[in-house]
Amino acid sequence: MKILALNASPRSDGNSAVLVEAAATGARDAGHEVTVLHLDAFVDGALRDCRRCRRSDGGCAIPDSYELLLMEHLLPADGLLLSTPLYWYGMSGQLKSMFDRLFCYMSPGYPRSAEVLASLPGMRVGVLIACEESYPGATLGLRAQLQELTRYLRQDLVDVVVGVGNSRGEVARDPKDPISAAAQLGRRLLDTRVADYHFDTPRGHSVWPQDDVRP
Amino acid sequence: MKILALNASPRSDGNSAVLVEAAATGARDAGHEVTVLHLDAFVDGALRDCRRCRRSDGGCAIPDSYELLLMEHLLPADGLLLSTPLYWYGMSGQLKSMFDRLFCYMSPGYPRSAEVLASLPGMRVGVLIACEESYPGATLGLRAQLQELTRYLRQDLVDVVVGVGNSRGEVARDPKDPISAAAQLGRRLLDTRVADYHFDTPRGHSVWPQDDVRP
Amino acid sequence: MKILALNASPRSDGNSAVLVEAAATGARDAGHEVTVLHLDAFVDGALRDCRRCRRSDGGCAIPDSYELLLMEHLLPADGLLLSTPLYWYGMSGQLKSMFDRLFCYMSPGYPRSAEVLASLPGMRVGVLIACEESYPGATLGLRAQLQELTRYLRQDLVDVVVGVGNSRGEVARDPKDPISAAAQLGRRLLDTRVADYHFDTPRGHSVWPQDDVRP
Amino acid sequence: MKILALNASPRSDGNSAVLVEAAATGARDAGHEVTVLHLDAFVDGALRDCRRCRRSDGGCAIPDSYELLLMEHLLPADGLLLSTPLYWYGMSGQLKSMFDRLFCYMSPGYPRSAEVLASLPGMRVGVLIACEESYPGATLGLRAQLQELTRYLRQDLVDVVVGVGNSRGEVARDPKDPISAAAQLGRRLLDTRVADYHFDTPRGHSVWPQDDVRP
Repeated sequence: MKILALNASPRSDGNSAVLVEAAATGARDAGHEVTVLHLDAFVDGALRDCRRCRRSDGGCAIPDSYELLLMEHLLPADGLLLSTPLYWYGMSGQLKSMFDRLFCYMSPGYPRSAEVLASLPGMRVGVLIACEESYPGATLGLRAQLQELTRYLRQDLVDVVVGVGNSRGEVARDPKDPISAAAQLGRRLLDTRVADYHFDTPRGHSVWPQDDVRP
Repeated sequence: MKILALNASPRSDGNSAVLVEAAATGARDAGHEVTVLHLDAFVDGALRDCRRCRRSDGGCAIPDSYELLLMEHLLPADGLLLSTPLYWYGMSGQLKSMFDRLFCYMSPGYPRSAEVLASLPGMRVGVLIACEESYPGATLGLRAQLQELTRYLRQDLVDVVVGVGNSRGEVARDPKDPISAAAQLGRRLLDTRVADYHFDTPRGHSVWPQDDVRP
Repeated sequence: MKILALNASPRSDGNSAVLVEAAATGARDAGHEVTVLHLDAFVDGALRDCRRCRRSDGGCAIPDSYELLLMEHLLPADGLLLSTPLYWYGMSGQLKSMFDRLFCYMSPGYPRSAEVLASLPGMRVGVLIACEESYPGATLGLRAQLQELTRYLRQDLVDVVVGVGNSRGEVARDPKDPISAAAQLGRRLLDTRVADYHFDTPRGHSVWPQDDVRP
Repeated sequence: MKILALNASPRSDGNSAVLVEAAATGARDAGHEVTVLHLDAFVDGALRDCRRCRRSDGGCAIPDSYELLLMEHLLPADGLLLSTPLYWYGMSGQLKSMFDRLFCYMSPGYPRSAEVLASLPGMRVGVLIACEESYPGATLGLRAQLQELTRYLRQDLVDVVVGVGNSRGEVARDPKDPISAAAQLGRRLLDTRVADYHFDTPRGHSVWPQDDVRP
């Protein structure tokens, strides 16, 4: 299966890069085809006022490689690994603009919008956050946002791994070992159980297979 | 006192504009000097890798009007009104980049960083959100983020007003009347009580003045 | 229509009572049949271990009036107004136990569980919070919990009104006027729009009726 | 050092018990003196209206072992491990009532309140959640609440470990291995770095010790 791994930090070689590479390695270990990209190379500007910005052929007028990223890399993926620094208790501006501008490609004005709408749901999303602070509340806003966002797109938010560090690469020295957690997330991205029930969702008494049940 | 009111939507005449104008009117009614600006006119790009991007004179190399916005409008303000559409359950990319790029101006490399660091704390912040959806959970991620962000800067997050609407200006037809709530937020931005206690914070038994105590 | 209004504070005459009475008055103004109850009179203890606690006839063995509250008051209601003090950044213990113990009545062991399961979904829920602190982050955990909880039950969380106060009844002096907001919530509980979309939810370009569209 | 580990589930032998025992074992491995208690044996009822409930000697009139738990076990602890099932997207009613009733012992009416107020701050808190669902948003409300609650008490919320399971003990089969994470949390509870900065908090460029810095 195909997995797109995005480093959404403005830095190409910082802690977000370390985390996304670890996750990509895990995904490759599980036999997946993984592409790692630096988001900053594809997304230059924020969403503009679509009514005024859209080109006459229906395309987005912002002159960068967003369309290439979306159509060639993101839509074909079965799984998405997003690695972002925690900036002001949220995702990077680059990643925010990646989501904002998706709107332009999902709306009927874009000639290939049907393709976009057909490909986004069902995707499995894993998140990696590089963060200087380590209190659990630091990432809550971002977790809440990503949960709603994936739910809106009918995607599965699989897990969120936080690595603590500030100077380049030192996330690898975080004693909680986020590198291993990132690798595990990559390895299990497509087969991890993600349950999000309503009261009437049919389910068994047990969550996990029963073969090794305790006496 | 001075209040800066920012429309952080890419659209200059949408629902975020309606909300920010209502808040600005309220603030003017209370005697404040209010400047309303369209953020998109000042912020063009996302934060880059500062180590590589910063100019030799210490300034930010991104060629837009961010520095003007920050030094001439934001820092002198006593209060800040931020109006944003809810995009993907978060703030607009423009507003996210406004925060992200603050980092560049707060760090010692920027010659006037001491001024920036001295002016940000103590500011009072009111937030206006224009939103198509109306379930209370839609804005939780953004509220959590703004709470932590203002707290980090030693600012007071005063209140969050949500107006529901999608097509241009229809937030004015929201039966909850967010226009009046926005005006009230603007009017009371600088004198609203914002308590955020620890267990040992000294406080009276009553929150509000006692003169009209019930028998 | 029937509306159940619960004061979930241990105090029968505090700020939660003031808020719930205001909401009840609003609901009555809108022509609804409203019952106001003090939760503490019905719920005495926390959920126990059901496997060991359940009576031989399938009922809950905790000797209080929970079953009366649930079967006679809660299930027949079309709308529910929950008023709670913010205790430790969450709902009161009484209200938490009301939810926890619902589990016992929803499970197949309870003879009338089908009735319970049929009546809970579709209910509209409005929340009133009495709170000493006034920073917006204080109520976020409770909002998040109630959003997920109502969603799980296929109910609509309509709105959350926060009144600031500490000593008895002083929520009425909160300058944001939560009393009027509570009355409005009561009045509009059953007909307020609550949208919670997925990307493919059919919807018009406008949220509100178009008759007074701006030119 | 002393660590109190509380199983806050109504069940004494369920998944919360498995998690808390794993954490306790980790804490003992690190040389700490650990006491594991079943909260349900100590806390029977919810907080009542203190003004009417308090005994003439200043004590709480609810006839259970709360005071013993608080004075003999909780206050002397340097670290606290709280293990709760996720009930209705929040903590168990027992645990909620444990916090609610703390109020009675912190207020001046209680003769030993000074002792309570002196002992609570500085405690380090680790949280274990047993949960049937596995979407990351399920626990957000509880995380937000515990973050604010510990912050209010000037305690450090160290980490939150989630184990997925439903039937008895099956959290041990969760492929994410929450048992090991719980043990690690117990082992490192008292020395894990918990940073919660303001913009002017002095700090180095690096988070972790520099000895193995990358070239």
